[in-house]
Amino acid sequence: MSRTFKLTIAYDGTEFAGWQVQPGQPTIQAALQSALASLTPGPIRLIGSGRTDAGVHALAQVASCTLPAWRAPAEALRRALNTGLPPTICVLHVEEAAPGFHALRDATRKRYRYQIRVGGLPDPFGYRYHWHLRGPLDVTAMRSAAWRLVGRHDFASFEATGSPRQSTVRHVRSCEVIESPLRQAPSAGFELPPDAGGAGRGLAVEVEADGFLYNMVRNIVGTLVEIGRRRQPAEWIEEVLALKNRDAAGPTAPPQGLFLKRVDYE
Amino acid sequence: MSRTFKLTIAYDGTEFAGWQVQPGQPTIQAALQSALASLTPGPIRLIGSGRTDAGVHALAQVASCTLPAWRAPAEALRRALNTGLPPTICVLHVEEAAPGFHALRDATRKRYRYQIRVGGLPDPFGYRYHWHLRGPLDVTAMRSAAWRLVGRHDFASFEATGSPRQSTVRHVRSCEVIESPLRQAPSAGFELPPDAGGAGRGLAVEVEADGFLYNMVRNIVGTLVEIGRRRQPAEWIEEVLALKNRDAAGPTAPPQGLFLKRVDYE
Repeated sequence: MSRTFKLTIAYDGTEFAGWQVQPGQPTIQAALQSALASLTPGPIRLIGSGRTDAGVHALAQVASCTLPAWRAPAEALRRALNTGLPPTICVLHVEEAAPGFHALRDATRKRYRYQIRVGGLPDPFGYRYHWHLRGPLDVTAMRSAAWRLVGRHDFASFEATGSPRQSTVRHVRSCEVIESPLRQAPSAGFELPPDAGGAGRGLAVEVEADGFLYNMVRNIVGTLVEIGRRRQPAEWIEEVLALKNRDAAGPTAPPQGLFLKRVDYE
Repeated sequence: MSRTFKLTIAYDGTEFAGWQVQPGQPTIQAALQSALASLTPGPIRLIGSGRTDAGVHALAQVASCTLPAWRAPAEALRRALNTGLPPTICVLHVEEAAPGFHALRDATRKRYRYQIRVGGLPDPFGYRYHWHLRGPLDVTAMRSAAWRLVGRHDFASFEATGSPRQSTVRHVRSCEVIESPLRQAPSAGFELPPDAGGAGRGLAVEVEADGFLYNMVRNIVGTLVEIGRRRQPAEWIEEVLALKNRDAAGPTAPPQGLFLKRVDYE
């Protein structure tokens, strides 16, 4: 009897060509499908809640798959999968889902986090996980712009060009600019001396929506940073929205600051 | 007129074959010397306070060099060097030193930090910076063993085999087992949700001494972990010291948990 599973996955996207299988390239989906193939007769297709680009990370990507021959508990699947994955990918959780559960189609909301570090020396232990800017950034202006994106809007100006969609209208539930206390690298949360990587300040932009267009978060962040740098006033973002033209918005923020943080289902 | 400089350097050693220049291998010394060569007539020899092995990191390695033709301030040298370095190496500080200053010969004391993570899920963002153990570890027993190493002892049992030295006596000033509050990955000190990488507990061993033998910290940590796992009692470490034989000690802890944290000079 076939069983459907819901997987929650964290990954460091630095050395991957993104989530989606691409011939001849290392991708997260390919690594997971290959780990699945070694456990159960296949091929098994793993469906992600959405693609992430090269260099983009996930704290909790969600994927689904249907296994015709897996008899053991879901937790055994999680453990077995992790033994076949590189250290940059970890399956955090596996649970059995209702038959027909589909991680892409059934997703109702997503949250992304984009990390910025303002000022300070380059950080050899953290550079993979933030966009390092010299600063200063006007956080008040960035916040004033960010809330103007909340609501149901046509986000065509924030979609990468050449990505045709039926509709570019999305409902942004929240768009927050958060001052994150910046601690020293390296990661895994150990306290380190203040001379370990220069001071600097942590800033995160978190966006939650019922769906995202291609590169939408990175284009929103690039636009907010233009405002933070006072190259444009906060109200400019309303013009950008109204123009429905990618050329109106700011540049695309680099991938390494972006994390898929949460995916919600009914 | 020649000027001598003292450089303080942080690096992520993951993708390097260690500090010391080795033909055909990426090393930290080679990267720094090549950055220097692009700035000032050379070749310039950069002297480190000591080698670090492949995969070992530094929060504050110290190096010295004498430049025959550098006219600008020390801070300009720091900035110029950083533009020529990969993101895994950062020169934190440069100051002019007394003529004849020698980073290796003049070092009076060093401090290393070794990071352990006990339990929890594999951490895709932090695995480069700790030794992940399933645990549990008896921290009280590890502490009881650690303080027995403090003082002037013959550390022959903790030296890698095949590394002849005039003397294997060293003065360990402190050897601490620290429970470090473990926060979630990724690095650069941002607060992340608790589902991002499993719980787990952080532990660090910090050793300060007037000098270290080859692999001494990693051998001390491997031995302390044997005691933490209750495979040996705390008193066993005194036997190990007394035997003056590498085979008496525990296994060598892996490189990725080790950081050169501080080097002191007169």
